[in-house]
Amino acid sequence: MASIEMIVAARARLRGHARRTPLLSSPFLDEIAGRRLFVKAECLQHSGSFKFRGGWSAVSGLDAAVRSKGVIAFSSGNHAQGVALAAKLHNIPSVIIMPSDAPKLKIANTRAFGAEVVLYDRVNEDRDEIGARLSAERGLTLIKPFDEPLVIAGQGTTGLEISEQAEEEGVTSAEVLVPCGGGGLTSGIALALEASAPGFRVRPCEPKDFDDTTRSLASGKIERNAAVSGSICDAIVTPQPGNITFPILKRLAGAGIVVTDDEALRAMALAFTRLKIVVEPGGAVALAAALFHGDALESDTVIVVTSGGNVDADIFAMALERFG
Amino acid sequence: MASIEMIVAARARLRGHARRTPLLSSPFLDEIAGRRLFVKAECLQHSGSFKFRGGWSAVSGLDAAVRSKGVIAFSSGNHAQGVALAAKLHNIPSVIIMPSDAPKLKIANTRAFGAEVVLYDRVNEDRDEIGARLSAERGLTLIKPFDEPLVIAGQGTTGLEISEQAEEEGVTSAEVLVPCGGGGLTSGIALALEASAPGFRVRPCEPKDFDDTTRSLASGKIERNAAVSGSICDAIVTPQPGNITFPILKRLAGAGIVVTDDEALRAMALAFTRLKIVVEPGGAVALAAALFHGDALESDTVIVVTSGGNVDADIFAMALERFG
Repeated sequence: MASIEMIVAARARLRGHARRTPLLSSPFLDEIAGRRLFVKAECLQHSGSFKFRGGWSAVSGLDAAVRSKGVIAFSSGNHAQGVALAAKLHNIPSVIIMPSDAPKLKIANTRAFGAEVVLYDRVNEDRDEIGARLSAERGLTLIKPFDEPLVIAGQGTTGLEISEQAEEEGVTSAEVLVPCGGGGLTSGIALALEASAPGFRVRPCEPKDFDDTTRSLASGKIERNAAVSGSICDAIVTPQPGNITFPILKRLAGAGIVVTDDEALRAMALAFTRLKIVVEPGGAVALAAALFHGDALESDTVIVVTSGGNVDADIFAMALERFG
Repeated sequence: MASIEMIVAARARLRGHARRTPLLSSPFLDEIAGRRLFVKAECLQHSGSFKFRGGWSAVSGLDAAVRSKGVIAFSSGNHAQGVALAAKLHNIPSVIIMPSDAPKLKIANTRAFGAEVVLYDRVNEDRDEIGARLSAERGLTLIKPFDEPLVIAGQGTTGLEISEQAEEEGVTSAEVLVPCGGGGLTSGIALALEASAPGFRVRPCEPKDFDDTTRSLASGKIERNAAVSGSICDAIVTPQPGNITFPILKRLAGAGIVVTDDEALRAMALAFTRLKIVVEPGGAVALAAALFHGDALESDTVIVVTSGGNVDADIFAMALERFG
């Protein structure tokens, strides 16, 4: 089971390898949000998203003999890149199973990080089945994208940094808004903050029509999404919350917040203008929630995670053209 | 005179106010550069450029009675925003004299930071004359953009951070490439590195046709540019090196490196894709030099400063369309 002890251990393994990303802010964004707003810029993490933390945590946490045979992962792109880069830096092979409609940049980068990329059809094929088969055939260790304690522990290191950096800013009470797909990042941060910043509460943020976690938290049991694709927020489109992550969220997280694709794009444009960072649509949903759904918030201070920046240039230019 | 003691004192005044910007890197950029490449992301500084350091240093360094009357500055935009924000945070008035062709975003932000903005014609009017007159009329203290020891000292704090962060990466010898307009940032960093990292050497970087510092270093005396506008790199277009900054550069800097506007735009697109940061054209010239003028470099490791990110959305989208 994922725990604060595992997060602290992961932090030690990540030291000198993962980047301590900055906590940014802008008076212009404070004004829009109507409260103090801080942005934990995980888009500046190695591989362009927080997923490097979980990838490094999982790869470095394997027994050396097991690790040397290589790892396998399935991902729409950010977990792919995080695991591929962590594997490359450990000098071990990696196989990454990606949906054929993943952003071109993510597929290209995953290959450039030395991974063997296997594409699959998101509607007609089951990535778990493909992963299990290849894993068995080659002796690869499957690194799940979120429902895996070592991965959750790696993502949770983001939460330890948030509590340290917020303390430096004099913040002792805040809602922490996190883009939520399967819940690895959200549950990891929730566990970290429970131990290190009890005045902080995690709020999962999701795109409209892919609000499985929000609905699951409301009903108290795991709910599935009707569709498996169709949001511009590709990074956080998952069928349902994880069996490990959901109980953590049920215990620790506040209600979910749902934003539209257009709100995510507008948040990307504001992050460009006001923070000078590149955020991908899925990585911008928590910022969008803080900026445009202030009525859903209770605290005077909000901290949002911009979880990734792996966006194709044409999508980014479109966001600037429409909302810049 | 600007000195390492003044830089250390400025660092103390800036603590808790200026941001310690991250030192970023990407294996993809290392490959293009053909060497290890680190990026000091000053575009993530408050107000969107390193100029906040000099602005804060100058405003905080004034005698309290003098400071309370307010400050005045002239700038194409980044110094304007840095001084305006520093003045606002000190609760004092500021008047900023800006060229009428400055980027819209920079003019709007300067106003939003509470400054009174006075526009002038870059070709037919002399900003120094306007500044001196307003300064005398209202008892404002003129904060020059670069030829001012307190400003140089503030910019020099960037150099102290570079030497600390490079040491954390195990780097003890490097060329440090800096976008150079009047030379405040470049000379400040040169002084800081002389004291804190003697294995590092500063190299000024400039846009084609506005290479006054490069030519001045080559000839050994201050040379002027033929034109006063006409580069997309507006942030670093100045008539000539400063009387205070140039002797520092002459003593400490290596030869200048000149890049084209297209190379700056291509560097912006690569910073978008590989680092997830927003860099303006003038702020990208040192990155462009490292990526596309490797034959001008000698060291195995190069550190570049991306000095600002205050670029209008249409220019950024154009860079992505052409080079993304």
